[in-house]
Amino acid sequence: MYGLMGSFKAVEGRRAELVRLLLAEVDALPGCLSYVVAEDPADEVTIWVTEVWTDAAAHKASLQLPAVKAVIARAMPLIAAFGEHRETRPAGGHGLVH
Amino acid sequence: MYGLMGSFKAVEGRRAELVRLLLAEVDALPGCLSYVVAEDPADEVTIWVTEVWTDAAAHKASLQLPAVKAVIARAMPLIAAFGEHRETRPAGGHGLVH
Repeated sequence: MYGLMGSFKAVEGRRAELVRLLLAEVDALPGCLSYVVAEDPADEVTIWVTEVWTDAAAHKASLQLPAVKAVIARAMPLIAAFGEHRETRPAGGHGLVH
Repeated sequence: MYGLMGSFKAVEGRRAELVRLLLAEVDALPGCLSYVVAEDPADEVTIWVTEVWTDAAAHKASLQLPAVKAVIARAMPLIAAFGEHRETRPAGGHGLVH
């Protein structure tokens, strides 16, 4: 499995909108086992996204899906800055759903 | 929802054992929506655990379950150091399973 943990900061006042946008297309992406969008309670702008994919290729392929590309295009103007970007190697757990 | 993202370092040579231990009791914990254990590919000892719970109380209550307490007791000697500990406020996503 292939995991990602990332953070970024929304443009001030747009976090809720950005969260909704990021949640719009996450169901049933091929190879996506988990995808969670969370707000950072420490401020008003930071968002954390944690992802688990069957493998890195499935994640990469998802970025080429028209629906995902459309979400990214709409999300970019709402993102003020990128933060952490960490790859992991998930071993298992609860909530890994095909 | 209540989220946790945490890391810790296993005693050298014991990471795989610690990962297996952390995965042993994660199914069907009350209020646990997601629980993923991952290795950090950047070294041989770091583990990341990302969790989503219905609320903070459900997470706190889980720490009192005999099965969870037993895992913690067995895990402690395999942990060399604690790293990040971050609370999040998950908004939704894929793979959040009751």
